[in-house]
Amino acid sequence: MKKLLAIGLALACTLSALATHAEDGYDMWLRYQPLSDSSLVKDYRKQLGTLVAPDGPAVIESAAQELQRGISGLLDRPLERSDSLARRGSLVIGTPETSELIASLGWEDRLAQQGPEGFLLETTRIGRRDVTVIASEGDRGVLYGAFHLLRLLQTQQAIEELAIAEAPKVQHRVVNHWDNLNRLVERGYAGLSLWEWGTLPEYNENPRYRDYARINASLGINGTAINNVNADPRILTDQFLEKVAALNEVFRQYGIKTYLSINYDSPRAFGDLDTADPLDPRVQQWWKDKAKQIYKHIPDLGGFLVKADSEGQPGPQGYGRNHADGANILADAVAPYGGVIFWRAFVYSPEQGDRFREAYDEFKPLDGKFRDNVIVQIKNGPIDFQPREPFSPLFGALEDTNIMMELQVTQEYFGFSNHLAYQGPLFEEVLDADTHAKGEGSTVGKILGGEVFEYEQTGMAAVINPGTDRNWTGHPFVQSSWYAFGRMAWDYELSSEAIAEEWMRMTFTNDRRFLDPIGEVMAYSREAGVNYRNPLGLTHLFAQGHHYGPAPWYDEAERMDWTAWYYHRADEDGIGFDRTESGSNAIEQYHGPVREHFGTLDQIDEDYLLWFHHVGWDYKMNSGRTLWEELVLKYDEGVQQVRNMQAEWEKVQGLIDRERYEHVKALLEVQLRDAIRWRDSCVSYFQSLSGLPLPEGSPEPEHDLEHYKKLEHTFYVPDPWHPKGNDRRVDY
Amino acid sequence: MKKLLAIGLALACTLSALATHAEDGYDMWLRYQPLSDSSLVKDYRKQLGTLVAPDGPAVIESAAQELQRGISGLLDRPLERSDSLARRGSLVIGTPETSELIASLGWEDRLAQQGPEGFLLETTRIGRRDVTVIASEGDRGVLYGAFHLLRLLQTQQAIEELAIAEAPKVQHRVVNHWDNLNRLVERGYAGLSLWEWGTLPEYNENPRYRDYARINASLGINGTAINNVNADPRILTDQFLEKVAALNEVFRQYGIKTYLSINYDSPRAFGDLDTADPLDPRVQQWWKDKAKQIYKHIPDLGGFLVKADSEGQPGPQGYGRNHADGANILADAVAPYGGVIFWRAFVYSPEQGDRFREAYDEFKPLDGKFRDNVIVQIKNGPIDFQPREPFSPLFGALEDTNIMMELQVTQEYFGFSNHLAYQGPLFEEVLDADTHAKGEGSTVGKILGGEVFEYEQTGMAAVINPGTDRNWTGHPFVQSSWYAFGRMAWDYELSSEAIAEEWMRMTFTNDRRFLDPIGEVMAYSREAGVNYRNPLGLTHLFAQGHHYGPAPWYDEAERMDWTAWYYHRADEDGIGFDRTESGSNAIEQYHGPVREHFGTLDQIDEDYLLWFHHVGWDYKMNSGRTLWEELVLKYDEGVQQVRNMQAEWEKVQGLIDRERYEHVKALLEVQLRDAIRWRDSCVSYFQSLSGLPLPEGSPEPEHDLEHYKKLEHTFYVPDPWHPKGNDRRVDY
Repeated sequence: MKKLLAIGLALACTLSALATHAEDGYDMWLRYQPLSDSSLVKDYRKQLGTLVAPDGPAVIESAAQELQRGISGLLDRPLERSDSLARRGSLVIGTPETSELIASLGWEDRLAQQGPEGFLLETTRIGRRDVTVIASEGDRGVLYGAFHLLRLLQTQQAIEELAIAEAPKVQHRVVNHWDNLNRLVERGYAGLSLWEWGTLPEYNENPRYRDYARINASLGINGTAINNVNADPRILTDQFLEKVAALNEVFRQYGIKTYLSINYDSPRAFGDLDTADPLDPRVQQWWKDKAKQIYKHIPDLGGFLVKADSEGQPGPQGYGRNHADGANILADAVAPYGGVIFWRAFVYSPEQGDRFREAYDEFKPLDGKFRDNVIVQIKNGPIDFQPREPFSPLFGALEDTNIMMELQVTQEYFGFSNHLAYQGPLFEEVLDADTHAKGEGSTVGKILGGEVFEYEQTGMAAVINPGTDRNWTGHPFVQSSWYAFGRMAWDYELSSEAIAEEWMRMTFTNDRRFLDPIGEVMAYSREAGVNYRNPLGLTHLFAQGHHYGPAPWYDEAERMDWTAWYYHRADEDGIGFDRTESGSNAIEQYHGPVREHFGTLDQIDEDYLLWFHHVGWDYKMNSGRTLWEELVLKYDEGVQQVRNMQAEWEKVQGLIDRERYEHVKALLEVQLRDAIRWRDSCVSYFQSLSGLPLPEGSPEPEHDLEHYKKLEHTFYVPDPWHPKGNDRRVDY
Repeated sequence: MKKLLAIGLALACTLSALATHAEDGYDMWLRYQPLSDSSLVKDYRKQLGTLVAPDGPAVIESAAQELQRGISGLLDRPLERSDSLARRGSLVIGTPETSELIASLGWEDRLAQQGPEGFLLETTRIGRRDVTVIASEGDRGVLYGAFHLLRLLQTQQAIEELAIAEAPKVQHRVVNHWDNLNRLVERGYAGLSLWEWGTLPEYNENPRYRDYARINASLGINGTAINNVNADPRILTDQFLEKVAALNEVFRQYGIKTYLSINYDSPRAFGDLDTADPLDPRVQQWWKDKAKQIYKHIPDLGGFLVKADSEGQPGPQGYGRNHADGANILADAVAPYGGVIFWRAFVYSPEQGDRFREAYDEFKPLDGKFRDNVIVQIKNGPIDFQPREPFSPLFGALEDTNIMMELQVTQEYFGFSNHLAYQGPLFEEVLDADTHAKGEGSTVGKILGGEVFEYEQTGMAAVINPGTDRNWTGHPFVQSSWYAFGRMAWDYELSSEAIAEEWMRMTFTNDRRFLDPIGEVMAYSREAGVNYRNPLGLTHLFAQGHHYGPAPWYDEAERMDWTAWYYHRADEDGIGFDRTESGSNAIEQYHGPVREHFGTLDQIDEDYLLWFHHVGWDYKMNSGRTLWEELVLKYDEGVQQVRNMQAEWEKVQGLIDRERYEHVKALLEVQLRDAIRWRDSCVSYFQSLSGLPLPEGSPEPEHDLEHYKKLEHTFYVPDPWHPKGNDRRVDY
């Protein structure tokens, strides 16, 4: 009889497999497919037989629903929900306030230690019953604990003896969308904006809104800034606020606060005032009135994200005021509602000598002048999300100003959605970087956590790229960088390697034959992208506008700091940007040991060499080779790494679903084509300056330099947001 | 034991339902969910126990795979495939050439009658075995027969005694995409272009390409013109032709030919010549060389689609030549490869008096001057896909020129993807219209079928809108218009009502409690759209550019024929465009009885009244009411119809999946909001001219006319293709 049942089940599974959709990546890492390890499943089933969850707060209800969905799927049998403990194997969740069972544990002090977003996940007994408990002071902590337990199951961890205490290390864990109101996404590369303004507020039952919230909440992300920092003032009209409120209704159920990017000139754009001068009382009143109107629509709005006086955006400097003046009036306007201001430090003006220096030079003198509910949001590096940058010297420089870091998940400079380039190692590199702000060990991560300076508010943000593409992110592996950001925003000490393995297990399979080789691929994929684009501290060799293809020869633009030449400064004698005392002296912005490390040729990590030094083509590297030889070999290595990625990927055929396998395989072909073109373009160009032969064994570029120059604006990847930049010339 | 098995199955189904995706409309009408009528399923299973399909041609293989997928899903058990007949219940498919079993039937003559795209679908015996047969002369016929059988199952028809003989009534059944190479879709409203140029040719395994082909093939569609008629010349570069070839590889497996929209000035755009004059031998040679290059990439390309001398597109008139000169050189270039030219008749110049007349005035004199492999593609009406138009007078006017009709599935003038407006009744209306070209009964349908004049080639085309939106079309009901187009292109005599029922059964449910009310809703949904926008023969009252909202007051533009006033000509005395002898005399372009019908006030169907006559506000209608009263009541009726649609939709809650139910419900709210605004805007405006009171019971508009005028460019529906038009003013 059992056998027959098994046959029935097997048959039904085959059938349902036939009828269901092909694997398309939509579920991201929340796949919840039945686990393959049957003895583990048996144990899990025993331990997690019944869910005991309180009725009540929406966020706890979301946790309960997620647990039912996840555990039912993973263990391939429905998880029942009950009001009371089963005889054995109950999963009990809640806060002491919402659940008498949780209250009965007497854990109040321990829960207080973890705070309202932290949780305890433990196996224990209530009365005579064995239970697994997810408890928190706050509703969000319960939700995060639920996702934690699900992650343990998805990655097939033992759960018989759980004694987990977790709490996030930073306070604001925020994703940023560069979505325009016309639904084009700046630097998104994964379809149109998720926000269907034309059908809002009516249609907020769109399943993508909820799934988007689930995906973020599963990582502990608690904020989303939904519109482009190059902000359209209309986001603050009643018409749009109603639409935002409808989205916020969904996000709220997953503990996610909504933030709006605002245009600093809004008082003028609305036609109400002829100025946006922050010291003008009418402007201050305008923002107070506007805040009142906004919070009427969205009482729990998180606040504003502001890009001011940057790349053409208006700001306080247009009225002779500084960033603190600018930020503080907004902070005062939202303070009555508990709102905060994320004020971006990504500023640079065409006049200055070294763009590297500018954010520091503008913000350092303002340290201590910002309100407590302002947080200065600083990109990881001093330029702009390049494949490798030294950490921004602002980390460790602002002692009395709340700061947070801005990372980029969308691959603006990493091959859009076509290249595999797991960003975990990049994030880890900057989080682990030691600023020496208060002696050794003052890592960027600790600074962000408020452990070096006592900040009122802490946070991490990332520019993500989800759009209407079915798998949200275009390249399936861009998902991994979103995942890594979320996990590191929760705990900056997690390793990119461990995170990659978690992600692969949840997203693809627990099969070691997949995890080992593809874990390797992920680990070096970012370095590969550095190598075939701009090794040894080169940077920003991109064609203008599209940021996809190479143009190291590019030396004329409206602004020199938008050219490639500005960054590499190569001539027949040598290459690199001198940022030591003999040059722009940007290194003075770092604390002593860092300054010395970057500033001294025999100390510097060669990965950063040309960021800080201009050296001759014959400069001797640690390897004994000349700089020229090393440079070419690095380019070669980048191409070889992509070939290796292809070879490894081919080996995992059959270990995962065919659809995602073929997708990644095809994209690796695109990546190899691009990597070769990058390498050949850069090697040809630099050789035209150095006049030196290629090192032995290094292949001659297939074409001459003129050929590659002509390709600069040929069609690469259509980017609807930027048709003029990406696609502006008709090349035949 | 049986019971246990049943429980096992039921349990497994619950579980798989938990784990699978929510219903999202992706499957369109190819849903293949298990049928609910269990006794019917039992019969079907008996009859369709085994599939006997030949190995061989790709298109027959596609048919076999579709049958396996469809029948396995619908009957909830795997359909086995075998090389030989089972003892009972075999489904045998093939051509006499590919299948000995089919050959053994001796049906060659009968198959020849149906032609290579037609098929016989019959129950019969082969030897002693009962079989169901799908047979055709050609591979495509087998595929179309397979989809026909699946449709019978999906709609729960009896299949024990099948004797079906089908063949398409027109030859070219083509969908048109207005997709730009940057992936923005002109008038698409359903996401970005399906064609991911950035990952082609490498990634043509994208499941959407195949599913797109399946969807079209299921209707018998055999051609797709993949790029915008406002054509980017780069489509003819090697770089793009390689990408197109990769798509074509997929389409070919479903019997679909690829067509390219070309830019008439390509010889100049490529920098090869300084002219595109069709009578210049160098130009002729250029196109011959280009055709050779194109067909090297895509040997089975269908040909070109051309928009010339229309709305700024280049064409032969720029060189003093006519449309025949222009089309014929392209026809000669593709003729050696079996290609055809679809030459659009959608032309109008700013100079002429009545845009209505222009296509006829330009093309009628050229009748008989086009090559045999040219087909003139004529929009259904003389203007541009308006909610209601009289049929184009070119139907019935061209006796010696191949013609085809162009319809619009995408709702450019029907509320984009926000409004429910099934286009079947519109298509039916024009197909059934009697041109009287050769006496009574010379319907547009028969003319298209080559039954009135003997055309060398026949066809129907439709501008469809699928994009990256998960359900392909934005509004779930836009799918129904795509479906209706395909079915009517196959057989112009099918009724829109019967097609709607088929579509609903396949797409939603066979439950009569759904089919009856929603069938009604579909039947009047188009008329509702006419009523709340432009009843009684009014037309084109749209705001410029976005074609979404009302602007009947709009009377200034670069071209008068882009204003609303041009079309309604309302003043204090009356309203309407006089196209009788006393006016533009456009009616002279119709054959006698039609001319008389449209031209005579007491004969004309009042639905067309203001298309042809300028009448006073107090003109007496058949109802006894004045024109003014009737007009307002029609607007009222339109709004009421949307309310009725909402009421009917609410009744079907629970009869279909929650996801699509909620989606349509929310969109109906948007539609009601828009319908009220249309009605109030138009009634206010026309009342400002007529000065007459509203009929009793008709509600006063909520706001005054100035209010509605101000709304003209407020944010409606973001249309990324057209941000400047849709979204150009900042209204606060």
